[in-house]
Amino acid sequence: MEVAGKHFRTVWMQGNSVMMIDQSLLPYDFQVYECKDYRATAQAIKNMITRGAGSIGATAGYAMAQAFLADKDLPKAAEYIKSMRPTAQNLFYAVKKVLKAKDKQKALEIAQSIADEDADFCQRIGHHGEPLIKDGYRILTHCNAGWLAFVDWGSALSPVYKAKRAGKKVFVDETRPRCQGAKLTAFELAGEGISHVIIADNAAGYYMKKGEVDLVIVGSDRIAANGDVANKIGTYEKAVLAKENNIPFYVAAPSTTIDFDCPDGNKIPIEERDEDEVLKVVGIDENMMISTVRLASRQSHARNPAFDVTPAKYVTGIITEEGIFAPGEIRKLVKKRRNQ
Amino acid sequence: MEVAGKHFRTVWMQGNSVMMIDQSLLPYDFQVYECKDYRATAQAIKNMITRGAGSIGATAGYAMAQAFLADKDLPKAAEYIKSMRPTAQNLFYAVKKVLKAKDKQKALEIAQSIADEDADFCQRIGHHGEPLIKDGYRILTHCNAGWLAFVDWGSALSPVYKAKRAGKKVFVDETRPRCQGAKLTAFELAGEGISHVIIADNAAGYYMKKGEVDLVIVGSDRIAANGDVANKIGTYEKAVLAKENNIPFYVAAPSTTIDFDCPDGNKIPIEERDEDEVLKVVGIDENMMISTVRLASRQSHARNPAFDVTPAKYVTGIITEEGIFAPGEIRKLVKKRRNQ
Repeated sequence: MEVAGKHFRTVWMQGNSVMMIDQSLLPYDFQVYECKDYRATAQAIKNMITRGAGSIGATAGYAMAQAFLADKDLPKAAEYIKSMRPTAQNLFYAVKKVLKAKDKQKALEIAQSIADEDADFCQRIGHHGEPLIKDGYRILTHCNAGWLAFVDWGSALSPVYKAKRAGKKVFVDETRPRCQGAKLTAFELAGEGISHVIIADNAAGYYMKKGEVDLVIVGSDRIAANGDVANKIGTYEKAVLAKENNIPFYVAAPSTTIDFDCPDGNKIPIEERDEDEVLKVVGIDENMMISTVRLASRQSHARNPAFDVTPAKYVTGIITEEGIFAPGEIRKLVKKRRNQ
Repeated sequence: MEVAGKHFRTVWMQGNSVMMIDQSLLPYDFQVYECKDYRATAQAIKNMITRGAGSIGATAGYAMAQAFLADKDLPKAAEYIKSMRPTAQNLFYAVKKVLKAKDKQKALEIAQSIADEDADFCQRIGHHGEPLIKDGYRILTHCNAGWLAFVDWGSALSPVYKAKRAGKKVFVDETRPRCQGAKLTAFELAGEGISHVIIADNAAGYYMKKGEVDLVIVGSDRIAANGDVANKIGTYEKAVLAKENNIPFYVAAPSTTIDFDCPDGNKIPIEERDEDEVLKVVGIDENMMISTVRLASRQSHARNPAFDVTPAKYVTGIITEEGIFAPGEIRKLVKKRRNQ
């Protein structure tokens, strides 16, 4: 998508370096971050310089290509990259795919094809999801599943970008602890000129109950074969509330996010991150400097699960590049994927 | 309760001044804030120097007593004080009660009795709620309904303080936007040596679904006659999730929080506060200075409803000073209150 009039992807290769938008600085500063070897690229995944299902996948693919180019021990590199974050399926998908390459040139090609495929799939998700949005619809989204979370276009936000509807408006969950909603989704929507409003995560149910939300669309970090969906912590809460209020709850994700080897959501490993993400908040201070404040006293500690699992029964449909599927029907996509 | 070995109430009168713990500085600094006239006291309610159902009520009562002592226009003072915050029932209860006083001395006595009654009622809430907590219970609470929210003891936390149970633990919702959970409830629990952990509001459902929450107890700002409960934004989400996961959901509140003239929750006015509470976060910086950071870019705006209404059907019971009532049974308390 465009930033200040120039088209950007979230991640790309330039020579032997992996270049990425430094998402840890957004929305305050727009910088490109360079990773000169696969370890640096992997660390950028771990430290969330880049983040989001598709971005992580494409970045991991490029990291594997870097390992090829530098004649590194490939299985070791693959294990290292996969160890960066446990929940995101696209990471494992991309590493596995590039690892199969016969030579350096092929590794580069496959890594590039993963990124291109991600952008293409997300465009197609937008196409399939677009009819769900009617004039005047008020859409709730959680976390960031826009173009910053993928290579381009995004999953949950792609239908929103494609749908040129009058009166359309997005409720953006702030998405504590890392506030990807307030920081990234709001930044994206502002960039595209889409009417939006940030709300505390606590307020989503309030607006649903008032009848002010017509549709919920979120992304996913891993979908189990039975349609259970792992996504940013808090997604499960929104799904239960959507069901309670008879609001359609859609998950938008490329088929590369589906883990056909994972029978159900209970088997999806949930990353627990540092308690400081809950105890502290990063923002910008009066002097426009990125600054961290601590909320709680030092006597108190926090728990910080980064994802939760929404059982398939709460999911109205899964919007993929191949169309919209009921959660119980995504196994239909397995054949297509296995043939690749 | 005790702070640094000394007993404090949240608010009290000293001469003609109303003194209160400055809750805007907690947990970073403990200061007593002095209000020399009723307008200053009312402003302290508006600016949330003091906050919480019972604290607001007692403070409003003292403010009315100040108006009496200073020979002010009493109906005008009452309207001014009542206009500070629209949702909290205890504010209206206290202003109305003191306004009936025949003279200065009586006004002071009534204001004092409101504060004393609040402390007494909260102790009794603790007594009635205490048997709900078993050994090893993991209790979720939202916002702050501890002693800081009342004159002493608190509502939701009073049973927790009373129950000397082995292995007892409290999950504390951070409670964005103002983070009263992370700041005040965690501070209170640390002060009482009670095992607790702060979680993002988004994580409450995750722990409920995992079977790690045995009981939810929250406070209330106003209870309608049919048992619908207004409380801090996000309470409704937790109530729906508790029901979905078969976890008992209790509301603890003195009968002074019940608005018998309000037939149901739809009639409870919901305060909408400044968007900056969502767009910004107040904490303490590296130099231990209270500091504000902004999360979102200036292109984005926020909505900030401060309360929501939980329909009675999600409430297991309401813990009052008179015992635990099903939400549909609180009308039984009306006679007692009207007789006062």
